[in-house]
Amino acid sequence: PIGNLTELNEYLGKWPVTWINVNGLGDESILRQLGSMFDLHLLALEDVVNLRQRSKVDDYETTLYTAMRMLSLNEERLSGEQVSFFLGKNFVLTFQEVEGDCLDPVRDRIRNHAGRIRGAGPDYLLYALIDAIVDAYFPVLEAYDLRLEELEDDVLGKPDNSTRNRLFNIKHDLTRLRRTLWPVREMTGALAHSESRLITESTLPYLRDCQDHAVQLLELAESYRETGSSLMDFYLSSISNRMNEIMKVLTIIATIFIPLTFIAGIYGMNFENMPELHVHNGYFIALGVMTVLGLAMFAWFVHKGWLSSPRRRKDP
Amino acid sequence: PIGNLTELNEYLGKWPVTWINVNGLGDESILRQLGSMFDLHLLALEDVVNLRQRSKVDDYETTLYTAMRMLSLNEERLSGEQVSFFLGKNFVLTFQEVEGDCLDPVRDRIRNHAGRIRGAGPDYLLYALIDAIVDAYFPVLEAYDLRLEELEDDVLGKPDNSTRNRLFNIKHDLTRLRRTLWPVREMTGALAHSESRLITESTLPYLRDCQDHAVQLLELAESYRETGSSLMDFYLSSISNRMNEIMKVLTIIATIFIPLTFIAGIYGMNFENMPELHVHNGYFIALGVMTVLGLAMFAWFVHKGWLSSPRRRKDP
Amino acid sequence: PIGNLTELNEYLGKWPVTWINVNGLGDESILRQLGSMFDLHLLALEDVVNLRQRSKVDDYETTLYTAMRMLSLNEERLSGEQVSFFLGKNFVLTFQEVEGDCLDPVRDRIRNHAGRIRGAGPDYLLYALIDAIVDAYFPVLEAYDLRLEELEDDVLGKPDNSTRNRLFNIKHDLTRLRRTLWPVREMTGALAHSESRLITESTLPYLRDCQDHAVQLLELAESYRETGSSLMDFYLSSISNRMNEIMKVLTIIATIFIPLTFIAGIYGMNFENMPELHVHNGYFIALGVMTVLGLAMFAWFVHKGWLSSPRRRKDP
Amino acid sequence: PIGNLTELNEYLGKWPVTWINVNGLGDESILRQLGSMFDLHLLALEDVVNLRQRSKVDDYETTLYTAMRMLSLNEERLSGEQVSFFLGKNFVLTFQEVEGDCLDPVRDRIRNHAGRIRGAGPDYLLYALIDAIVDAYFPVLEAYDLRLEELEDDVLGKPDNSTRNRLFNIKHDLTRLRRTLWPVREMTGALAHSESRLITESTLPYLRDCQDHAVQLLELAESYRETGSSLMDFYLSSISNRMNEIMKVLTIIATIFIPLTFIAGIYGMNFENMPELHVHNGYFIALGVMTVLGLAMFAWFVHKGWLSSPRRRKDP
Amino acid sequence: PIGNLTELNEYLGKWPVTWINVNGLGDESILRQLGSMFDLHLLALEDVVNLRQRSKVDDYETTLYTAMRMLSLNEERLSGEQVSFFLGKNFVLTFQEVEGDCLDPVRDRIRNHAGRIRGAGPDYLLYALIDAIVDAYFPVLEAYDLRLEELEDDVLGKPDNSTRNRLFNIKHDLTRLRRTLWPVREMTGALAHSESRLITESTLPYLRDCQDHAVQLLELAESYRETGSSLMDFYLSSISNRMNEIMKVLTIIATIFIPLTFIAGIYGMNFENMPELHVHNGYFIALGVMTVLGLAMFAWFVHKGWLSSPRRRKDP
Repeated sequence: PIGNLTELNEYLGKWPVTWINVNGLGDESILRQLGSMFDLHLLALEDVVNLRQRSKVDDYETTLYTAMRMLSLNEERLSGEQVSFFLGKNFVLTFQEVEGDCLDPVRDRIRNHAGRIRGAGPDYLLYALIDAIVDAYFPVLEAYDLRLEELEDDVLGKPDNSTRNRLFNIKHDLTRLRRTLWPVREMTGALAHSESRLITESTLPYLRDCQDHAVQLLELAESYRETGSSLMDFYLSSISNRMNEIMKVLTIIATIFIPLTFIAGIYGMNFENMPELHVHNGYFIALGVMTVLGLAMFAWFVHKGWLSSPRRRKDP
Repeated sequence: PIGNLTELNEYLGKWPVTWINVNGLGDESILRQLGSMFDLHLLALEDVVNLRQRSKVDDYETTLYTAMRMLSLNEERLSGEQVSFFLGKNFVLTFQEVEGDCLDPVRDRIRNHAGRIRGAGPDYLLYALIDAIVDAYFPVLEAYDLRLEELEDDVLGKPDNSTRNRLFNIKHDLTRLRRTLWPVREMTGALAHSESRLITESTLPYLRDCQDHAVQLLELAESYRETGSSLMDFYLSSISNRMNEIMKVLTIIATIFIPLTFIAGIYGMNFENMPELHVHNGYFIALGVMTVLGLAMFAWFVHKGWLSSPRRRKDP
Repeated sequence: PIGNLTELNEYLGKWPVTWINVNGLGDESILRQLGSMFDLHLLALEDVVNLRQRSKVDDYETTLYTAMRMLSLNEERLSGEQVSFFLGKNFVLTFQEVEGDCLDPVRDRIRNHAGRIRGAGPDYLLYALIDAIVDAYFPVLEAYDLRLEELEDDVLGKPDNSTRNRLFNIKHDLTRLRRTLWPVREMTGALAHSESRLITESTLPYLRDCQDHAVQLLELAESYRETGSSLMDFYLSSISNRMNEIMKVLTIIATIFIPLTFIAGIYGMNFENMPELHVHNGYFIALGVMTVLGLAMFAWFVHKGWLSSPRRRKDP
Repeated sequence: PIGNLTELNEYLGKWPVTWINVNGLGDESILRQLGSMFDLHLLALEDVVNLRQRSKVDDYETTLYTAMRMLSLNEERLSGEQVSFFLGKNFVLTFQEVEGDCLDPVRDRIRNHAGRIRGAGPDYLLYALIDAIVDAYFPVLEAYDLRLEELEDDVLGKPDNSTRNRLFNIKHDLTRLRRTLWPVREMTGALAHSESRLITESTLPYLRDCQDHAVQLLELAESYRETGSSLMDFYLSSISNRMNEIMKVLTIIATIFIPLTFIAGIYGMNFENMPELHVHNGYFIALGVMTVLGLAMFAWFVHKGWLSSPRRRKDP
Repeated sequence: PIGNLTELNEYLGKWPVTWINVNGLGDESILRQLGSMFDLHLLALEDVVNLRQRSKVDDYETTLYTAMRMLSLNEERLSGEQVSFFLGKNFVLTFQEVEGDCLDPVRDRIRNHAGRIRGAGPDYLLYALIDAIVDAYFPVLEAYDLRLEELEDDVLGKPDNSTRNRLFNIKHDLTRLRRTLWPVREMTGALAHSESRLITESTLPYLRDCQDHAVQLLELAESYRETGSSLMDFYLSSISNRMNEIMKVLTIIATIFIPLTFIAGIYGMNFENMPELHVHNGYFIALGVMTVLGLAMFAWFVHKGWLSSPRRRKDP
């Protein structure tokens, strides 16, 4: 943490690679000073503060500008942050909206002299930073994998309106993820096949590996999105199935009793001459006929398989 | 504002870059005179007055013809206007259907000697004009973002037929936006990778930036369209859900009362020998049986979960 | 109109460009004679009479064969016709199934010595002919635009089964249009980027313009098709909405009367001891209770919003 | 028909082009002998007997291996057969699963010395054979065109469950056709742009023509598939429309009678004091009221347009 | 099976090609030792233990790294395993998660000195291994083909909820299969067109054959997925059809009895003056009228075709 930009000049000469990280983008004058100090293109500086940037690489000969979107999950909500990198001959300059912790693993590796990172050039540092951000997408996608599994249980079990809302939200998020990952794949691909002088031959395999990860992320996001869609379809067909089952049972009850009520209605008529009314056991015979008729209709419905579905529903 | 075309000749020599803006396309003779004065290709002049042009770039060696569609929102309705540019060695010629204000920021920057625009060549001026038009798309898309958010509230809240009509309109508009933006992306891409002598090396990064914006606009439009579609799906499933809930409740009421009415029908029969009728508290027993039966059916429906959905509906 | 093929030879030498138009493809011997006279490839001659050709360009070194499909609307029905062109060093040979009038504008321009067409070479004539055919698609598409607007009014107004059939037909036609226009775009593109010796440099911009029109036509067809699809979706949801409204109102009427009928059924029972029957104003009290119950249910339904939709339906 | 492979050697030298056709693939030793005699690659021989091959071209320098799928309709069912071709410097070798008749036209043309086929080289013979197979797809597709037209009549007329099954089958078949034709297009394209020494310049236009046909077939298959899909959609909406009409009419009948039954229920109550019962013409007044009410409801339903659809259904 | 890595060194020199197979990836030190012994790139070693790798080829000049996913069916459930290959100048190194048996056919061929495999170089061995894995996909896909056929019978026969669940699962699996096969196709394609020194000219046709198989697998998976989707659509339409049939029959029963009950209700009224009640055969006349009315309604429904579908349902 340096308070003063002039101090920076002293640091710059000391080591072959210098990493300067700027948190927060509020102070325009600092940006302008850094711009002139490192000879950054005006358009790139504009992109740094324009927070709706797609992930991309711009090659300005003396520097390479890279914009990336970081995604994280805060209490089940996706939130995005923009990170900008400038790669120069002997420096890497990073800009973050807020101090993020997804670059921390790289910091640790530098502090701990771990791996290649200390001996290698600024392009390897850039790779390490981009790789850290790309790898940070995996836990986000895993969280969605978990949520999809929960939703699958819900959809196969007792789906209700909240299931639908969660499915809607998850599909929305996965669409957004895919939209964010698509340019990341392009960007890593552009880096892996870059012909810039700033990227050395030995770093290219690492960048290609990074591109592989981005492709994998995109495919995961795509496949989760497909799972989400097919869960939604399954949910909708479950709901309409359940609705149909209910309507069917209710309609069957109504259908059985309507003819019986008609019979009762007949013997409720007030005609003078209705011989059945005077038969001694007429009433009981009528009751018997109604019972038989009701049971016959019920049996017919069962035979037709119109009542069997609700039972089978439990076993699959 | 110049009334006379001969005056133009005087102006032309004075400065290294001349910007001529023609408002309205009615007067064919002016067009023809300008065409011969600046050596414009006949096909390009035809395209200027053909108002159904797609955004495109045509390279006629000595001049570069660019057609673009501007979109603006008037009282929630999309309206398009065609703007044509000719880039020559020392001039930029623009044609607008009506005097639009989306080129005003460029005018202001020229008047105020702001930025690079005064010192740079005609190709930078062309970039500035195209960029102004591209940037003017952003507020239009933002307006749709806002409307989609309102619609989302409506769809999650109390959707009705007007929701559906607005969704239909917004989807229609977003399809049109996407169709308009697609060639804009192509056009800016063609400019950014143009090999025309009229475009200098130093302007190319600016044109690439412009292309980035066009890509971003297209992706926004695409994503809004997806949101629109998924809101429509959500709306349709909400409506059919609500319908189903209503039908279910109504059917349940009917189903409970039909067997009870049947019982009442039985004791309304006029058989001579119906012992129950003569039991002293028969009537009250019958009422009791009916109440118990009705409540039992209700309880069974609740137990089956057939009545639970409307309640859960409020919490998600 | 020439009756005799030998006459043709005389004409051929006279002018730098000769346009021969053959109407009707019945006479095979003429075709064979023309073939040998102009040195046409056998495969191209076969394609001339094979009337299911896709629009395409075949480059046979000494001649360029072009097949195109013309579409016209006869009494609201799409009908297609195949036109074939041969471009040679000093001639253009056209074959039409029936004498079409869409080449008439070109004839007029030749007769009136209008534009470039007289001075230019055979490749410009070919362009003029293709352009005439491409331009003839625009009124066809406009007719569909109009029909779609009418259908939109119908769908938003009072859709019925004829609306559905017309939507089905229009979607079918637009699919066919798109399928016809797709190869037209390819063909014009192939011409515009042709490397054949028969096409001069100065004609290429015109052919590129022609390609632009073909792309525009394709996009129009595509966008009408999308509009058609979304009208179909809207229609289907309107119909199911209307159906649902009807079912709802009817079910509500039934639901209100079923409990009331149950009450009437109770007092229609013949139990000996039913004290209410002997209350003096019992009947009126019962009627009052029924009225109150019916109104309460109605009010509850209104309160629940189950009856509000039909009213709102008129305002959007 | 040659029984003995050694005889073959005698034939081979005699003519510039030899066509050997092998029917049935059972005898592995013959295959191996042929393989060594004509210097065929082992992989190609494996492909000959692997009957699930996609249509493809493999260039083994000294020979060109081509696999193709033939499709034919037997009693409305699609059946496929694999044909393999080897093109060598002076021979064409074909393998068929069963003796098919779709190569007969080529045999006839050779016997009749018709066309170019006798004078030309083995590559032209290969073209003629492939062309014969490609052309044999057209009648298959036409059969589906016919079936689709029949189905369209059924769908617009009186669709039932068999319509649905036939639509399902036809869509299945067309999907299969498209899947079979896709590699055919690739294969013919590969041949038409082949750089093999075995294919002479003068045959390329013919192979390009063949490729055109394959593209046309694919587009036909695609368009039939689309027609099939849209018929299916139309069928589904017809069925649900018809169902809705039925439900509506039935519900309307029920709805009219339920309030009337309620009125009858009222006067069936046994209250002691019901003045209307003692009015002299009370019964007839009640009947009149019921009739008026029933008619009023019916009129209201007609006025609301709830009964109008079934009538309009016949005219479109 | 070698227990000690130093033994390995002795083996390495002995034969021109050495195949080392490592089962299980637990022991990191072995991995590191092998890495230094064969000069493997660190990134490749990381990929070996990262079990979520897509199938891919990475060319590290001195070695070629290939990752592949094997799929097998265990009790109807898809399970995947990752296999990694290193191809060097004189060795092939394979890593398997668990000792799989899908490489056994290659082992047998080596032991039996069958085919080319013994004489050929390490690149042919790599091909043989990859081919074995690719071929192992075929039985998996065939199992799904079988299941789809069973499901088709179920769907055309008596579909229930378990059918739906199985369809859902099969679609899920096929989506996963396709997602797994997509990179396999890319990988085999990359190998078949590889320019690595490690792959000899004579092996390329074999690798191209392998790519053909991968393409075929992908097309099969795609086509099964389409079949699955269309079965799902068919299932859904069957279910809703069956539901509709039930509802229709039930509604018709209700509809016939409601008017009859109304008539019974009329003669159940207690008006003093109801002449019909005193007609001697009034009761029987009323019964007759009801019977006639009921039969007339039934006949009308049959005539309208509202009852015909269930019967036709059996014949298609």
